[in-house]
Amino acid sequence: MSESPRLKMEFPSLPAPATAHEQRRQQVLEAARLCFSRSGFHSTSMHQICAEAQMSPGALYRYFPSKDSIIEAIAEEERVLATACTQQLLEPGCLVERIVQVGLEYLRHTRDRATGGLTLEIWSESVRNTAVGQRFCEIEETVRAGFRRLLVDARDRGEINPDTDLDAALMLIFALADGLVLHLQLRPEIAVETIEPELRKFVHGLLAPRQPAAAVTAAGGRAG
Amino acid sequence: MSESPRLKMEFPSLPAPATAHEQRRQQVLEAARLCFSRSGFHSTSMHQICAEAQMSPGALYRYFPSKDSIIEAIAEEERVLATACTQQLLEPGCLVERIVQVGLEYLRHTRDRATGGLTLEIWSESVRNTAVGQRFCEIEETVRAGFRRLLVDARDRGEINPDTDLDAALMLIFALADGLVLHLQLRPEIAVETIEPELRKFVHGLLAPRQPAAAVTAAGGRAG
Repeated sequence: MSESPRLKMEFPSLPAPATAHEQRRQQVLEAARLCFSRSGFHSTSMHQICAEAQMSPGALYRYFPSKDSIIEAIAEEERVLATACTQQLLEPGCLVERIVQVGLEYLRHTRDRATGGLTLEIWSESVRNTAVGQRFCEIEETVRAGFRRLLVDARDRGEINPDTDLDAALMLIFALADGLVLHLQLRPEIAVETIEPELRKFVHGLLAPRQPAAAVTAAGGRAG
Repeated sequence: MSESPRLKMEFPSLPAPATAHEQRRQQVLEAARLCFSRSGFHSTSMHQICAEAQMSPGALYRYFPSKDSIIEAIAEEERVLATACTQQLLEPGCLVERIVQVGLEYLRHTRDRATGGLTLEIWSESVRNTAVGQRFCEIEETVRAGFRRLLVDARDRGEINPDTDLDAALMLIFALADGLVLHLQLRPEIAVETIEPELRKFVHGLLAPRQPAAAVTAAGGRAG
């Protein structure tokens, strides 16, 4: 797939663990993500996380004093990633096309079973409005607010349709992203790239000013 | 909101329970839906369903011999509803607009906590590929196949963009529907009707032939 260098972007990675302490901490978090995605936050015990991380309880407790502190560390990672994504949307170029590219990277990021499964578990907690669910909802609210400001600015610049109901459009964008995380989990045989042209039509149809046919074709020619 | 009678439709209801036996059976299913959406399929016991339905185990077992038979009955209801929805898409009129209307009705149907919560639980089973998950995936596959035939016919008639990648478009439609079920659960203060105009832009942007501006405006004028 050809792609203009201007549109090339990489999904923000968390900083590489610098020290042995940080490496071991990441090892615990990775094990915890796996356990949570398999059995849920509530049913997972510290004992199971120790077994998955191949660490003794004594060793693990040096990194995290409780299951809650592990969940909080995962939430903090999500927050850092989400903030970095919003930053990528701020970079120069056509906002509509950047939304498509950040969306594709988000879908690649959640493709593996542990991350995708954990995402489902977070939704479940959020709908049940537990303390864990509320924590992740706060993060989403921050992302949504940042995204909304971007759309307001883009509307003022005439880059998106002035009639757009921004809150409804944001709901559709977030809903499509989450729905695609689910459906890509259900159909592991489908490559994320397969849906790129239709995803572009969706974002253009939703946000681009009227007479978008030429713009869509141009974007498709650049990156599709 | 004004709406042309031609576009008026009602989400297919299950037949009203005709007999006392059927009424009691429905009472068990309703209780089971509530329990499953709160605690999941695995953690819910027949004892909890009895308590929720205010029935003795002896009485309940006359209707359902096992938890599996309750889950199968719920799956069968979903299958009947899904088939009726596909039928509604077959009725005359603009297919793109019918998709919008059936979509809105589906979202109204999954709005209540029990149905919405149960939907999340079904996704979780589907991603974990359990027997229950596989059962619901089969139903979705049937709906998807019916929907796909409709899109092929509409493409042959020139009603949708001939360049549409039908499988990718179907994935986006199903993903958006499921993502909206989730986000409407998370934001109970938002009315389904609020998102109708943006939903219409999405479906038109995705499927309508190029030069869709006039068609979108006309549809908006009829039903928006």
